[in-house]
Amino acid sequence: MNDGLLIVLSGPSGAGKGTIHDKVLQIMPEIKKSISVTTRKPRKHEIEGVHYYFKTEEEYSQMIADGEFLETASVYCHNYGTPKAPVFEMLKNGSDVIFEIDNFGSRQIKKKYPDAVTIYIMPPSFEELERRLIARGTETPDSLKTRLGNARRELSEYKDFDYIVFNDDADVATEQVVAIIRAEKCRMYRNEQTVKGMLKRK
Amino acid sequence: MNDGLLIVLSGPSGAGKGTIHDKVLQIMPEIKKSISVTTRKPRKHEIEGVHYYFKTEEEYSQMIADGEFLETASVYCHNYGTPKAPVFEMLKNGSDVIFEIDNFGSRQIKKKYPDAVTIYIMPPSFEELERRLIARGTETPDSLKTRLGNARRELSEYKDFDYIVFNDDADVATEQVVAIIRAEKCRMYRNEQTVKGMLKRK
Repeated sequence: MNDGLLIVLSGPSGAGKGTIHDKVLQIMPEIKKSISVTTRKPRKHEIEGVHYYFKTEEEYSQMIADGEFLETASVYCHNYGTPKAPVFEMLKNGSDVIFEIDNFGSRQIKKKYPDAVTIYIMPPSFEELERRLIARGTETPDSLKTRLGNARRELSEYKDFDYIVFNDDADVATEQVVAIIRAEKCRMYRNEQTVKGMLKRK
Repeated sequence: MNDGLLIVLSGPSGAGKGTIHDKVLQIMPEIKKSISVTTRKPRKHEIEGVHYYFKTEEEYSQMIADGEFLETASVYCHNYGTPKAPVFEMLKNGSDVIFEIDNFGSRQIKKKYPDAVTIYIMPPSFEELERRLIARGTETPDSLKTRLGNARRELSEYKDFDYIVFNDDADVATEQVVAIIRAEKCRMYRNEQTVKGMLKRK
């Protein structure tokens, strides 16, 4: 059986990677999501092992020391990371695993697992990105300015990704991501074992 | 505007590349087919410039001498080839062009146009390939033996292709080819100009 695909969705905030991530999972419910480990306190409704694995700083540092992470980052003084073992296990069992993560996390994953398929979700334009961030109504003029500055810096890292999907219409962009996942399963080197088996027989 | 995609469908006879080729064009009627040049005489109903461009041996040899072919082959003492110029013109205008061609032709195309997307249509098994060839009712025991021998030799060249599609169900295989075409349009390097333009603006 072929290994599953490790699929990474990245993109600046406002590009819509969260929406596309959820829509892809509606079309391909068989795809697994990885569960992150975090040192922040659980919010109400957050269930251990469903939303996150909640760890103390000490436990988390030990996991880093033991090289247990596929990627790890610190956000607002809290650590968030993806443990390697369960992801590699799902892939070995032939399950596809999808990540919605920032550029930094994507680069760490690609480094530890070069066969990862990395997809960058782009806004159709900066104007549209700005419009979406304002529409959220959660941005102050300052935070908006910061987010747009970050977006420009992040977008300039597009070369790190295998694919670029422009999210003008979320359904069209979702179809493109689904097509990428289906196409990657047909890559020659992913099917070599099957073909070799076929050529051996008879 | 991005260049169109040059898509190559290959596979041993009986794998079903012809059927898939036609089904892909039903789903993506915007994809252009290239018209071959041949030295064989037109059959009735065959129209110059629609089915083939019919040339004399002398004209054909001159075209070879002038390096006008993307690929050329001799089949049963007749020459068949694809003229480069019209294909490259369609690609430059942003049109995708699809080829249904054998391994030898596919290799020639990939050599002259490395950006070609080459897809190998595989039968699900040798048993099924044999069953399909017999079902055609056009094969003598000898020609069947020859075709199966050729198939085995051709299948062992799978490494020359970018993608492998197993044709168990023609509709599923067609969807996979369509997904490959859609995914290839999202490849990072095919969208670099668009992104650079976006980063320049504003």
